[in-house]
Amino acid sequence: MGKTGVAAVITGTEVLTAKIVDQNGPLLIRRLRERGVPLHWMCTVHDDADAIVEAVGIARRRAAITITSGGIGPTHDDVTARAVARALGRDVMRHPELEALIRTHYMEEVSTEALRIADVPEGTELISQEGTWFPIMRCEDVFLLPGVPQLFRLQLETVLRGLTGARIHLWALYLSVGEGAIAAVLDEVSARFADVAMGSYPEFGPAAGYRVKLTLEGPDAARVELAAAALREGLPQGSVLREEPAGQIGA
Amino acid sequence: MGKTGVAAVITGTEVLTAKIVDQNGPLLIRRLRERGVPLHWMCTVHDDADAIVEAVGIARRRAAITITSGGIGPTHDDVTARAVARALGRDVMRHPELEALIRTHYMEEVSTEALRIADVPEGTELISQEGTWFPIMRCEDVFLLPGVPQLFRLQLETVLRGLTGARIHLWALYLSVGEGAIAAVLDEVSARFADVAMGSYPEFGPAAGYRVKLTLEGPDAARVELAAAALREGLPQGSVLREEPAGQIGA
Repeated sequence: MGKTGVAAVITGTEVLTAKIVDQNGPLLIRRLRERGVPLHWMCTVHDDADAIVEAVGIARRRAAITITSGGIGPTHDDVTARAVARALGRDVMRHPELEALIRTHYMEEVSTEALRIADVPEGTELISQEGTWFPIMRCEDVFLLPGVPQLFRLQLETVLRGLTGARIHLWALYLSVGEGAIAAVLDEVSARFADVAMGSYPEFGPAAGYRVKLTLEGPDAARVELAAAALREGLPQGSVLREEPAGQIGA
Repeated sequence: MGKTGVAAVITGTEVLTAKIVDQNGPLLIRRLRERGVPLHWMCTVHDDADAIVEAVGIARRRAAITITSGGIGPTHDDVTARAVARALGRDVMRHPELEALIRTHYMEEVSTEALRIADVPEGTELISQEGTWFPIMRCEDVFLLPGVPQLFRLQLETVLRGLTGARIHLWALYLSVGEGAIAAVLDEVSARFADVAMGSYPEFGPAAGYRVKLTLEGPDAARVELAAAALREGLPQGSVLREEPAGQIGA
């Protein structure tokens, strides 16, 4: 089967050292989900070329599209473009069109260092982005997005418009019994319904009013419904407190 | 140099599919920072044994201690213990002491499946945890923490008490100029002060009142202060709007 969905690499020493709370990862998770695009893997690394090369390599093996966040800029800690080039086995080249955009934006303030932003993996394609002069950079299956949340948010929406989402049908059951009492039926039903992903999430606070939330999801509403029925049948009598059937997300 | 600090592997499909917003990763980042323990790498993976094995392998290469969050439990999607065993090249064994704790906790409700929680990597050490019957599981350099935030939080504090933090001295400069205008001096000073980590964070909203925040940090207050002075000297005249000197964190 071909690769699907997205994997993400968040660079940020500022995230790992708690200087900022990462907004881009959580936004990416939420927006991909809303669009029905699977997120396979996400990694947060320091502004370190070796770590980024490794992470981009794994991301590309796991997903059809890799999105990086951060490390795009003119300073010594901006190493993402170089690292992505290495991960793709490409040289770093000055991009004439990007250089022209930088010169136009910075005008007389432009410096040798500001122009470093135009040094990108050879073959990088620019996608112009409404709302900012700074374009999206794409090389092969990697989108290099800036870490600044305002820009990341804008560019992510443009990237998302190019991805094909699937409709996902959801079902949830809230149970009065613990995971130990349901694991056997879950084993059995999840093995029978390979096309329905099942999750089991215990809740320990008494405030929740249930002990385990079971989630079911898949591309085929009828199969999700069948799996929910199979679970309901196999679960201890009276253990289903409530259900949330037939929700639906994705494009 | 020996390995230091921590790397983290967050398992959850529920995080990557936006069913819950991960609290454990952000908590880990904040608490490690407060204690002065470096966090080298963090990865979020699905409840998939292969993905966890790979992530734990990378984490262990990058840090002295690996902390996993989630995938501890009796259901089909709880695969962390098995995956950590594979990553460590160990068998999975029923842990008699853990089995006894589970039997005591669940009493007559105990099931064959609940006892699966006692199947852990051979040689796993249990560390009893105040506030919950469920102990911390440690095998070699890997701490296997549960994903449920209430339990993760409790156990993390116990793990942290066993780690040695370093004092970190901080300095911040807020600038009226953009990154292009400071990259050269940053290059020069960061190359001269290898023991002082420098970060450069542009701010694009006008509300911030500055254009770039520079951060400096290191174990030696005098060196951090010298690096800040070197920056101040090299930066464009009048570009430093304000400074926050001599903050300090860590044990």
